[in-house]
Amino acid sequence: MIVIMADVSAAQATLAQAKANHLEHVYAWKNRVGFANLKRMSEAPFINEQQVVDVILDHPAAMQVSRTFQPDDTVIQTKHSIIGGQHFNLIAGPDAIESAEHVLAMGKAAKAAGATILRGGSYKPRTSPYSFQGLGEQGLVWHRAAADTLGMDMMTEIMSPADVELVGQYTDIFQVGTRNMQNFSLLKALGRQNKPVLLKRGMSATVDEFLSAAEYIASEGNQQIILMERGIRSFDQKYLRNTMDVSVIPVLQKLTHLPVLADPSHAAGVSDHVTPIGLAAVAAGAQGLMIEIHDQPAKAWVDGKQALTPDQMMTLFTKAKAIHEL
Amino acid sequence: MIVIMADVSAAQATLAQAKANHLEHVYAWKNRVGFANLKRMSEAPFINEQQVVDVILDHPAAMQVSRTFQPDDTVIQTKHSIIGGQHFNLIAGPDAIESAEHVLAMGKAAKAAGATILRGGSYKPRTSPYSFQGLGEQGLVWHRAAADTLGMDMMTEIMSPADVELVGQYTDIFQVGTRNMQNFSLLKALGRQNKPVLLKRGMSATVDEFLSAAEYIASEGNQQIILMERGIRSFDQKYLRNTMDVSVIPVLQKLTHLPVLADPSHAAGVSDHVTPIGLAAVAAGAQGLMIEIHDQPAKAWVDGKQALTPDQMMTLFTKAKAIHEL
Amino acid sequence: MIVIMADVSAAQATLAQAKANHLEHVYAWKNRVGFANLKRMSEAPFINEQQVVDVILDHPAAMQVSRTFQPDDTVIQTKHSIIGGQHFNLIAGPDAIESAEHVLAMGKAAKAAGATILRGGSYKPRTSPYSFQGLGEQGLVWHRAAADTLGMDMMTEIMSPADVELVGQYTDIFQVGTRNMQNFSLLKALGRQNKPVLLKRGMSATVDEFLSAAEYIASEGNQQIILMERGIRSFDQKYLRNTMDVSVIPVLQKLTHLPVLADPSHAAGVSDHVTPIGLAAVAAGAQGLMIEIHDQPAKAWVDGKQALTPDQMMTLFTKAKAIHEL
Amino acid sequence: MIVIMADVSAAQATLAQAKANHLEHVYAWKNRVGFANLKRMSEAPFINEQQVVDVILDHPAAMQVSRTFQPDDTVIQTKHSIIGGQHFNLIAGPDAIESAEHVLAMGKAAKAAGATILRGGSYKPRTSPYSFQGLGEQGLVWHRAAADTLGMDMMTEIMSPADVELVGQYTDIFQVGTRNMQNFSLLKALGRQNKPVLLKRGMSATVDEFLSAAEYIASEGNQQIILMERGIRSFDQKYLRNTMDVSVIPVLQKLTHLPVLADPSHAAGVSDHVTPIGLAAVAAGAQGLMIEIHDQPAKAWVDGKQALTPDQMMTLFTKAKAIHEL
Repeated sequence: MIVIMADVSAAQATLAQAKANHLEHVYAWKNRVGFANLKRMSEAPFINEQQVVDVILDHPAAMQVSRTFQPDDTVIQTKHSIIGGQHFNLIAGPDAIESAEHVLAMGKAAKAAGATILRGGSYKPRTSPYSFQGLGEQGLVWHRAAADTLGMDMMTEIMSPADVELVGQYTDIFQVGTRNMQNFSLLKALGRQNKPVLLKRGMSATVDEFLSAAEYIASEGNQQIILMERGIRSFDQKYLRNTMDVSVIPVLQKLTHLPVLADPSHAAGVSDHVTPIGLAAVAAGAQGLMIEIHDQPAKAWVDGKQALTPDQMMTLFTKAKAIHEL
Repeated sequence: MIVIMADVSAAQATLAQAKANHLEHVYAWKNRVGFANLKRMSEAPFINEQQVVDVILDHPAAMQVSRTFQPDDTVIQTKHSIIGGQHFNLIAGPDAIESAEHVLAMGKAAKAAGATILRGGSYKPRTSPYSFQGLGEQGLVWHRAAADTLGMDMMTEIMSPADVELVGQYTDIFQVGTRNMQNFSLLKALGRQNKPVLLKRGMSATVDEFLSAAEYIASEGNQQIILMERGIRSFDQKYLRNTMDVSVIPVLQKLTHLPVLADPSHAAGVSDHVTPIGLAAVAAGAQGLMIEIHDQPAKAWVDGKQALTPDQMMTLFTKAKAIHEL
Repeated sequence: MIVIMADVSAAQATLAQAKANHLEHVYAWKNRVGFANLKRMSEAPFINEQQVVDVILDHPAAMQVSRTFQPDDTVIQTKHSIIGGQHFNLIAGPDAIESAEHVLAMGKAAKAAGATILRGGSYKPRTSPYSFQGLGEQGLVWHRAAADTLGMDMMTEIMSPADVELVGQYTDIFQVGTRNMQNFSLLKALGRQNKPVLLKRGMSATVDEFLSAAEYIASEGNQQIILMERGIRSFDQKYLRNTMDVSVIPVLQKLTHLPVLADPSHAAGVSDHVTPIGLAAVAAGAQGLMIEIHDQPAKAWVDGKQALTPDQMMTLFTKAKAIHEL
Repeated sequence: MIVIMADVSAAQATLAQAKANHLEHVYAWKNRVGFANLKRMSEAPFINEQQVVDVILDHPAAMQVSRTFQPDDTVIQTKHSIIGGQHFNLIAGPDAIESAEHVLAMGKAAKAAGATILRGGSYKPRTSPYSFQGLGEQGLVWHRAAADTLGMDMMTEIMSPADVELVGQYTDIFQVGTRNMQNFSLLKALGRQNKPVLLKRGMSATVDEFLSAAEYIASEGNQQIILMERGIRSFDQKYLRNTMDVSVIPVLQKLTHLPVLADPSHAAGVSDHVTPIGLAAVAAGAQGLMIEIHDQPAKAWVDGKQALTPDQMMTLFTKAKAIHEL
């Protein structure tokens, strides 16, 4: 149940009363109060009905992230980036952090192409336990240093609630990978800290499941959530690893106020087709792109096949900005 | 086996000898001769080896439509359109032909927005046998008249080999729908006539199956084939009917010389999202778009939910051309 | 709209009146009359309301094949088989007819293992136009002779409406393959003749689409329809070609009165796993199995990889009957 | 690289040398030593070649769980159950623990039907953060008490590495749900304790990904792993929530020595079809079944729609055992 109150102060008063009544999962946005667990006004007798403008009973289960609750776009401000709304964001970096020099060089190229966020993995979710699992804290140190040197935001993947504190000492933005989209313990832990979280869509997650996963983060108090489409699993993997679901971009943007970005590198899985797929996502309305780059893709420690060279990134980002501005 | 000969006349001579030897499925393109059923030179002892420049043994099963056989783009010329290569084509019209006046009005709007091909169905492949199945020949008559009046090409769907002759008396381009992509009897019949065929991808067809379906048409002698991605079947149909597979566009264009266009109307299934999905396809490299339009979508006889109004079409086509020209 | 009349003669009278009123798509079963295109009683003012026991307005679009229209199981009687209801049917034979001797030998083995229907293809829907397309009428002749010699029913695939007459001169049962499940011209043609039709599920057809395809046949007057699950397309084709959807068997049996059989050969695509998959289908309630056999699988002209040897067939059929009888 | 040594003691000696050389991911089984990260003998110069019988270089990435490494079936012994090999196991219980009385009553019914393992969730991975998340430790206490009273094994789901110690104080078997199949932090944590782990297949996990997830557990030292197929995500969810992939059962059993069980309750999602789907899994070779039961499904706190009543369970288990014994 979402209750639209006369004004912001009435909403805040209602929120305070709900908490005084030990109600869980009550949230306010401007003059609105959302009660995730209530179905009718009679369940909240403490609400001053004279201050109620309207009541919405039929809202999505993932209430907070829905436009029904918050019609206005969420815009997230970090030290070097403004994400969401009409803004357009470019994120780039190596798949895995390899060395201090390498992440700095990749960051320089990324910045030159217009990126404000430097991505890179130090904890890698690899299919096999025997594949390189990331450099761990040493990677975080080098990644942080490169971001600071270049004046960029740092973004890195997190795989376990136990790592939130350590990784949070370094990163500006947490990334949750496709395999962990429904790792609810992790999502809750990220909801209890206050840095932005970029949440990738699970490889066979429905729209509703994706929004509910985001709601897990929001339910614990963190509304700084960025959604990212990264390709879904389909029936033909001969030529590409995944199928970029560009259609989901406008669908999500109608349903949620959260920024929706796209990752063409994982969608394609091979560098050949990253550029057209990335441009397609932007034409469909994506509010930004994230790509993986490497100066010597054949020598990349992880996923070199899908990495663009800095030059290819420059071409992609230049065209992407042109399409965004049309 | 593809044999690259010294020149075109050597290729033609080889083709003639192959026919004299009663070999089936031998095709020539410029100085190349493709033997679909042969695996090695020794199977074709009549070839003059002194005129052989190179032999390609490892080619796709769908040989003729592959770039291995024909590196250059196929460009198809109709009375009012040039399709393929660097050209960009717009196709529009009602889902079903409803009346002489209606198809003319829709054609006028389509032409005003830049379309050169007027689509419309008189034989409709409906999921239920009790749904409206199209006006049949009466629809063809009205459709032809509208195209002639406006100076546009006519394109309409064909569902049975038995209809090729009748429909061929009216249409300029045959359309094969997603459900008939592997209706091999139909494909062969269309391969034996000489008008262009637009072949839609089956809703769960792999890239190789799609190209092999096109090869069925080519194998009978008709190389004027246009491929169209129209959305694939995926696991989430709550908000959209299909998932536009934009990734397949660059993948196909690398593998085949045939033009690759996109149909965002069926991919979306709801008009809301046709525009961003259509633009995405163009950004991914689609060499044209086909959309369904209706002046009063709510009153359309078939699939009104996905029809754009003429105004919406104008907006889409204008942006599509801008993206194509970037 | 389904109208339940007082008795069979009232239903027949109503059917006659509907036809006199030029209503299309009106069908009777016992004391029921189904009007596929009517939504309310007022659209059929000629019905004698005093003889109306009940009216069902909310029925599936595929009306005739639904249990809402016909609660009792359809049981199909051919010369050598009774298919549907509590009966259990075994169908076997080579993928393609190869020679008179071969089909006879395979038929003998099939009969020895309990099969009453001898399958075999003379018109083959091959992915590539350059693959062997079947022996055509010569194959039909040999197939018919083997079936007659052995006292079995003959079943063979049909791919085009143009072939219905010719193939119908030989076969006892028509088979429609997965690629043609929505070849509506073919389905209608088969609805206008009076031999049973075995309809395979399309490789990504929904339950509703499958039933609507069957309804196409029924809509033209032929109610002798057998449904067959043969595996659906899924995301992992590394070890098996398709995914046998055993769940659909009880789902279909609840919704439709038609017999539901299973084809584990195509579901598996490799002979290793045909047996457990076939047994699973029977345990799920399949009213029969169809398998492909070959005495020398490695030398089979088509799909030898998935063929069982006669001995393997014997083992499978023996266990299948035991599970069916539990 | 898998090295087959002359005997067990040679294998143990080689393992000891590998550890002395600080090699990671080296494992022994009988007279075999598997080096997950080595590709050739020259990388392990310390191996006494005179004691080497054979070397297998081409093995699956998920080495330890493969039959290439361990040809014999894994058989897991708990206090009340023997799982794997020719044994057949029945697991039942409520979806969520609701009360001490309820879990005891459900356990009694499960035991009467032949189950030796009592399942129930106290930490529930719900799609929405606002749905009931389980009773937590109170549930574990009641669950443990019921299992002890009845002489059954307790099995419960774990969602976070942080809970392994607490949950491990109560449960006999850990369950990892479909959403956490690639929660690698959790898998590693479960690999470092010594109770059996039942790992459900991710809803769109390939066979290789499933085996690699199991390998994560094995890589940390715990080989007591039970695999469970629970239905995959497909394109038609109108009548059933998932598609039970019975085909994967024989495929897995050929590739891995681990026990493979099936969960028809989640595969179906509706109780109507749990029984035929469960029987199908057993006919395909599943070494056991897990089902959810409730005495009053309509009043179940979680997933009541898919719960069988105790009577329905009795029917299913009786038939399942009969099929297993065929």
